[in-house]
Amino acid sequence: MKPALGVCYYPEHWHEEIWQDDAKRMTETGIAWVRIGEFAWSQLEAQEGCFTWDWLDKAVDILGKAGLKIIMGTPSATPPKWVLEKYPDMLAVDAQGKMRKFGSRRHYCFSHSGYRAEAARMAQDMAKRYGKNPHVQAWQIDNEYGCHDTTLSYSDAVKQEFRIFLSQKYQSADALNKAWGNVFWSMEYETIDSIDLPNQTVTEANPAHWLDFRLFLSKQVVRFNQAQVNAIRPYTDKPLTHNYMGRYTAFDHFAVGDDLDIASWDSYPLGFLEQMLDDETEAHKNNFYRQGDPDFQAFHHDLYRSIGHGRMWVMEQQPGPVNWAPYNPIPLDGMVALWTMEAFAHGAEMVSYFRWRQAPFAQEQMHTGLLRVNGDNARGQIEAKQVADALENLPDIEQITADVAIIFDYQSQWAWQIQPQGKSFDYFRLIFEHYRALRQLGLNVDILPSNVTDFGDRKLVFIPALMAWNDNLKQAIKKFSGIVVAGPRTASKTAAKTNYMQISPTAPDFADCQTLRVASLRDGITIKLAKGGAIIRWFEELQGDKGFEFTDNTEMIASRDGNHIYIGAWLNQTAYQRIFTALCDESNITTKPLPDGLRIRTVKDKQFMVNYSAQDIIFDGVTIPKADYLWR
Amino acid sequence: MKPALGVCYYPEHWHEEIWQDDAKRMTETGIAWVRIGEFAWSQLEAQEGCFTWDWLDKAVDILGKAGLKIIMGTPSATPPKWVLEKYPDMLAVDAQGKMRKFGSRRHYCFSHSGYRAEAARMAQDMAKRYGKNPHVQAWQIDNEYGCHDTTLSYSDAVKQEFRIFLSQKYQSADALNKAWGNVFWSMEYETIDSIDLPNQTVTEANPAHWLDFRLFLSKQVVRFNQAQVNAIRPYTDKPLTHNYMGRYTAFDHFAVGDDLDIASWDSYPLGFLEQMLDDETEAHKNNFYRQGDPDFQAFHHDLYRSIGHGRMWVMEQQPGPVNWAPYNPIPLDGMVALWTMEAFAHGAEMVSYFRWRQAPFAQEQMHTGLLRVNGDNARGQIEAKQVADALENLPDIEQITADVAIIFDYQSQWAWQIQPQGKSFDYFRLIFEHYRALRQLGLNVDILPSNVTDFGDRKLVFIPALMAWNDNLKQAIKKFSGIVVAGPRTASKTAAKTNYMQISPTAPDFADCQTLRVASLRDGITIKLAKGGAIIRWFEELQGDKGFEFTDNTEMIASRDGNHIYIGAWLNQTAYQRIFTALCDESNITTKPLPDGLRIRTVKDKQFMVNYSAQDIIFDGVTIPKADYLWR
Amino acid sequence: MKPALGVCYYPEHWHEEIWQDDAKRMTETGIAWVRIGEFAWSQLEAQEGCFTWDWLDKAVDILGKAGLKIIMGTPSATPPKWVLEKYPDMLAVDAQGKMRKFGSRRHYCFSHSGYRAEAARMAQDMAKRYGKNPHVQAWQIDNEYGCHDTTLSYSDAVKQEFRIFLSQKYQSADALNKAWGNVFWSMEYETIDSIDLPNQTVTEANPAHWLDFRLFLSKQVVRFNQAQVNAIRPYTDKPLTHNYMGRYTAFDHFAVGDDLDIASWDSYPLGFLEQMLDDETEAHKNNFYRQGDPDFQAFHHDLYRSIGHGRMWVMEQQPGPVNWAPYNPIPLDGMVALWTMEAFAHGAEMVSYFRWRQAPFAQEQMHTGLLRVNGDNARGQIEAKQVADALENLPDIEQITADVAIIFDYQSQWAWQIQPQGKSFDYFRLIFEHYRALRQLGLNVDILPSNVTDFGDRKLVFIPALMAWNDNLKQAIKKFSGIVVAGPRTASKTAAKTNYMQISPTAPDFADCQTLRVASLRDGITIKLAKGGAIIRWFEELQGDKGFEFTDNTEMIASRDGNHIYIGAWLNQTAYQRIFTALCDESNITTKPLPDGLRIRTVKDKQFMVNYSAQDIIFDGVTIPKADYLWR
Repeated sequence: MKPALGVCYYPEHWHEEIWQDDAKRMTETGIAWVRIGEFAWSQLEAQEGCFTWDWLDKAVDILGKAGLKIIMGTPSATPPKWVLEKYPDMLAVDAQGKMRKFGSRRHYCFSHSGYRAEAARMAQDMAKRYGKNPHVQAWQIDNEYGCHDTTLSYSDAVKQEFRIFLSQKYQSADALNKAWGNVFWSMEYETIDSIDLPNQTVTEANPAHWLDFRLFLSKQVVRFNQAQVNAIRPYTDKPLTHNYMGRYTAFDHFAVGDDLDIASWDSYPLGFLEQMLDDETEAHKNNFYRQGDPDFQAFHHDLYRSIGHGRMWVMEQQPGPVNWAPYNPIPLDGMVALWTMEAFAHGAEMVSYFRWRQAPFAQEQMHTGLLRVNGDNARGQIEAKQVADALENLPDIEQITADVAIIFDYQSQWAWQIQPQGKSFDYFRLIFEHYRALRQLGLNVDILPSNVTDFGDRKLVFIPALMAWNDNLKQAIKKFSGIVVAGPRTASKTAAKTNYMQISPTAPDFADCQTLRVASLRDGITIKLAKGGAIIRWFEELQGDKGFEFTDNTEMIASRDGNHIYIGAWLNQTAYQRIFTALCDESNITTKPLPDGLRIRTVKDKQFMVNYSAQDIIFDGVTIPKADYLWR
Repeated sequence: MKPALGVCYYPEHWHEEIWQDDAKRMTETGIAWVRIGEFAWSQLEAQEGCFTWDWLDKAVDILGKAGLKIIMGTPSATPPKWVLEKYPDMLAVDAQGKMRKFGSRRHYCFSHSGYRAEAARMAQDMAKRYGKNPHVQAWQIDNEYGCHDTTLSYSDAVKQEFRIFLSQKYQSADALNKAWGNVFWSMEYETIDSIDLPNQTVTEANPAHWLDFRLFLSKQVVRFNQAQVNAIRPYTDKPLTHNYMGRYTAFDHFAVGDDLDIASWDSYPLGFLEQMLDDETEAHKNNFYRQGDPDFQAFHHDLYRSIGHGRMWVMEQQPGPVNWAPYNPIPLDGMVALWTMEAFAHGAEMVSYFRWRQAPFAQEQMHTGLLRVNGDNARGQIEAKQVADALENLPDIEQITADVAIIFDYQSQWAWQIQPQGKSFDYFRLIFEHYRALRQLGLNVDILPSNVTDFGDRKLVFIPALMAWNDNLKQAIKKFSGIVVAGPRTASKTAAKTNYMQISPTAPDFADCQTLRVASLRDGITIKLAKGGAIIRWFEELQGDKGFEFTDNTEMIASRDGNHIYIGAWLNQTAYQRIFTALCDESNITTKPLPDGLRIRTVKDKQFMVNYSAQDIIFDGVTIPKADYLWR
Repeated sequence: MKPALGVCYYPEHWHEEIWQDDAKRMTETGIAWVRIGEFAWSQLEAQEGCFTWDWLDKAVDILGKAGLKIIMGTPSATPPKWVLEKYPDMLAVDAQGKMRKFGSRRHYCFSHSGYRAEAARMAQDMAKRYGKNPHVQAWQIDNEYGCHDTTLSYSDAVKQEFRIFLSQKYQSADALNKAWGNVFWSMEYETIDSIDLPNQTVTEANPAHWLDFRLFLSKQVVRFNQAQVNAIRPYTDKPLTHNYMGRYTAFDHFAVGDDLDIASWDSYPLGFLEQMLDDETEAHKNNFYRQGDPDFQAFHHDLYRSIGHGRMWVMEQQPGPVNWAPYNPIPLDGMVALWTMEAFAHGAEMVSYFRWRQAPFAQEQMHTGLLRVNGDNARGQIEAKQVADALENLPDIEQITADVAIIFDYQSQWAWQIQPQGKSFDYFRLIFEHYRALRQLGLNVDILPSNVTDFGDRKLVFIPALMAWNDNLKQAIKKFSGIVVAGPRTASKTAAKTNYMQISPTAPDFADCQTLRVASLRDGITIKLAKGGAIIRWFEELQGDKGFEFTDNTEMIASRDGNHIYIGAWLNQTAYQRIFTALCDESNITTKPLPDGLRIRTVKDKQFMVNYSAQDIIFDGVTIPKADYLWR
């Protein structure tokens, strides 16, 4: 596959006179795709039913005729003010009960049926007009679902729909009381219609109450997205996508992805390191502040490639300093090209820069674009062009199945957020530390959903902290001949549908061991392992006689039964790399410990070597300059 | 006295079939008491007036016939949902004006008269049924008053009752205005009925307004408790108790204790160290994270023994990891037994583990019990059994009066919270640091209320930071021949009933000195003393010519007039131990500086030596293994 | 000019019997001025229209006859409860939408027209009675505008007046939409009457929306003040003043100052260091915790001298420990005198201590006065007397124009608060660091408003981070022959009146350079300069060929075109001092690098040398004892 470049463009922000020239400069930069429309509702329908399509018709025409393929965005993330006047209760409500106001974006609650219909109606109106337009080659629905914490809403609409959800799931209050264990503190309900949302209780609400709420909210995102999918599909045969975010886990992206054709995401490496990786050390942040974390983008590429069933785009790529992180540095020269090429190495079919021109006004005026406000080329444009040129000389990039996979499960994220037991237990973090350790060994890693039925040709599968088993996964494990590494906390909740948030009596019931007690460890505490490395954050007292790893005090912390291993602890990178290396050796997977900042991605017939550090690195006989990459 | 073990049990959480076996296993473990019922309202009265007593009758019968003495809990901490539907305004309201919701526990405001009556009615219904039952040997009223910050409520019910309280206290708005000094910022009221609660003012409300509010709220807890005491007493002659908490000071426990027969409390050493001792260093927390603070439990045993007029129980004893602290480690082997035996050494007549079986569901499913979820014995059961066995071989434990006492006064805690003057000035902390210094010298310490009229046979009494003198205490000091050590801040407010929150013109008026000015010291600042040790947090510029301690800059910081000493500063442990040792020498009290982690409790004819550290300690010719104790 | 001492006095807090003696002791202390009345509304008008002037008549008479000049305060900061009952919606509302309550002070919203009129009516009633009284020699309007965060209010009154403001400014919704760039996220309004306040939006509101709101709120303070100015002026020809605060920037003090005759301010050096200088290091705070920051007071003296058009008072001077900072230490002996004399050296005509007697009651009872609660002289009185004595022997103090000036602009403070781009970018901080660097070189520094039209005889002018150019300033620069140093961020927004919060396409357009991209730097990051010192917090990628300063990596960070210099970075003190020294040399300004804690203020014919450190300093042949000063 030969990947392509794209860009995000807002014709409604600029005089018509420059559209033509912009289109020309885009193609000269090597850009093939252009996303438009996703915030333009007010320009298309300034009042209910009064449409102004002509400017968009013209923009599509100009861009298309210049040779650009258009991704048309539905504008449901920014309803105009008249929509809010029509549905005054359509806004999300926060956990403190406050309804937010108009004046920015994402001012809607996923559960408001009136708005859901209005958004679908507008999407359909656009699809009717542009669905068959030859220039429009893809559709993006909405923009960054859940951004600004809008998945968790506590509105009246949510309350009503939550009760319907519970009624359908449990059929009766008695069944619900039993499933949740409401007897515990006299919390029984006589009717499901008297159940409230779990916020604002005196102390924490029942974790089962919370988990059902989180499951429900996730399904509301799926439902909102489906409404537009259903509205658009009849009018176009082009692929549908949505642009997801980094380290955002408030809804099940696999479930949304199942209704779409391509998973796209918005990649802002410097903003991510500063804002989304609070659990990194200051030293790490200082080392990579102009480059971004060496594994964070790769992880999401691999995750979204899985969510997109193999089809993945980067819809928004950071082109220079952004405006939204606590600090917003300038990328090292070369990083914009590096990030782009790395996305391609991980299977992105398209990488689209956000945005073409820096906006002169409003909230994001400090966010750079490929062009400056005055129209001059900015550094981002130069590097985009470099990538375009490099692509011409590059053979097709074909993805291969990785030897190693990690299961990623959104429900587990919610479960452990609800009940962390130790405040440093973060599911995403644990998954990411597994990913980092494996990648630092030079490996490709695939991310799989928890309902996978087959691990394919893979040799080594990790299942850290999966809340509960499910039948699909059990079947996949059963027929798998490679090594499966589970834990900590894996299957520590019961799997039965109606009481999944109850503790498992004999967790983990895997690798022939049981967990007797668990300890969460404060930040200052580490427990050394006999063979090197240490336990941090989480420790389980294991029972069994198939010890696989031990503390230097001879406590068993992992058990192995044939190809099944359970690790009852959170380990530091030293320990993970030691153990994973040995398991790879055993599985005939070649590992290659990489220096700090260097990473390797292997595709069919070639390797991508990338240097995230601020120093040149010599490795394996080749020099990879700082902030640079090479194919070999 | 021969102390006993107990356990908390929830028959309503388990199938009837296992009650019999549970009872048998309890007695085999050496358990004599079992607490039940305190969260079971919904199972007893699922709808108003519809009672289901049979299951509880049966549970009482089975447990009682197995030889267990039952502590029956009144369930007012968890009213069922129908009670809230009957009294929709019964919930506490937080300082931001938000009413909390149903779905956890303690969902009531102490000032709601409707609920107060309903809770008393339910307590009476239980007393009528079980008051004469031979198996029911004690009653617990409610559960952990004030937990989840429910003493401070800002509901309409509170506002109405607060006005009544003020009317009774001041008789007229003029008197109140004068007592509070409302002239200060034109804050006068024309009528007491126009006085609002002190929250949500533009800047801080008058401290007199706040202190009256805190006094009032404390009295509301007393009143709520009395309603149930009065409801139960006619139907039983068994002792009544309530289970207090650790470092919880929002109501006057002495006042509640005066209406009850036994003071019991809930002791969770590891949770306490992690969550309730934020003012300890990280190093201290890391050293004791699996053992708990070496003085915190002892302090509360001594405090609650005083509140119980000599009768003290531990109603809930941590049996393993808990679920509610930021981090929840596993106790070192031996600690559960150690904590239990230490409670006995400090006069506990009974120590009851929380809980028998780990719950498989709801909020506390990660809280361990003596049994695991699957019914296997957990480590807690093994150590409980060890204690039971040890008790058999142990002669009776008789408490003795300590040579040294500290006055503890809840009102002073509120006064200095309201007006800390320096943000590190915490009354409880100051008391606790006095206690720790004395205990590290190997001493027993008694805790006395501020209205004590006689210090008895004691030799040395400390009165740190008492807000104002009262006549009882003045009388006790007058007739006392030992040494009294007051300050800092002691008596810095006037004692007159109506203007107690006004600054005293010549504090401290004790030990022949006056305080001219006070300084609160930022964390980085210490002031060295001439003879060793240093001042931290608080320094008073003293006037007088009877200097007793000086800074290395010759400033007087303590004054001594005969047996009366005033220390106008907060000292570090080095200084306290030096000064206290000298005062003990003078008072013919033998001190014995103890190594870190080792503590001694002396009872009649024997000593309890306890090692909270993670290393064996050799002291005084004996070895006390880590996490262990010995009697000698 | 021979400056004078004053004191704040509350006759309504004390028995009439002591007023006479207090007046006598004031004059004996050397006090010439006394401020009264500013919180006494309830004592003057306990119910609407029922006045009680007699006590104030008497107090004025006693104080005046004792030889004291009276500053009469209007009491609008503390309306009595009946005023709130008359206007229940007069309170400010916070950003979360909560209305505050009665019970402290400043319980009003600047935009409430009913209260604005009521306050003006009361001021007029006082002016009618005392405007011609020979003892009343000045008037203070209200007290500390904006204290307790009351400038930013989100009440209904604010919303209504904000819409009027916007209508007047933009005339139409279309014009406003265009100016704000509301097309960005479909945020257009159809009518100005549908525009809401910018709080509580889902994510940040449009920065133009915020900046207009901040401008509007500032004007509301001006308007509130004007209402009283207009009410009083007809009845008196005495000077009017208001007492401003330290590091308070929520309204344009220059604009308020334009309606008044003298700018006074409230100087609390120890409280400031602890509470208002959170961006200082702990080491700095520990070094100066009993003295205050060596530059903070001087900066405000210079700022308010400018705001007062040359006339400046200190209305409240810290006399000892205060009560409101997180920690409240005792000043080193000598500091009260030092602070007072330093104010005189910077042009204060009068310094008035807050307060005469320590209050025995209410919120500020822990705040010291010149006298203790019991009437004894406190340390503050002794030092006040020392100052009075010293003044007698001191020739007149005449201010001179400084060679160096800094532009200070309130609007820029709001702009960068709204859009900091890096969380450590604080406008006040940047100005203050310029001021500190210059003062550490021994220089006098004048502070000028941004609409200054002429720099006078000055030689060196700094314009850091000015949001946008204005015509006055451009003219001043044009006719100036000295050096102008602008940046960082200066003129990075467009100057046009209707779209001032839009990014400038080619900032800075000064000193022949352009900013291509900006980087905000996390706390751990510094970038070294080739010639010494380093960049912190903010870095701009500059384009141009007139490089003036470079990083050690040869990146240009400053450009010089003739006498115009643009520094595209935030520098540390080492760099600032190096560069400023060179610019002074070039401008024939003599610099004198001062040791830590020593500062010099030059007035006509003499110099004030002040030692803020806790050690004696020998400099320039003279010894300045710790916490002391000398004139030479």
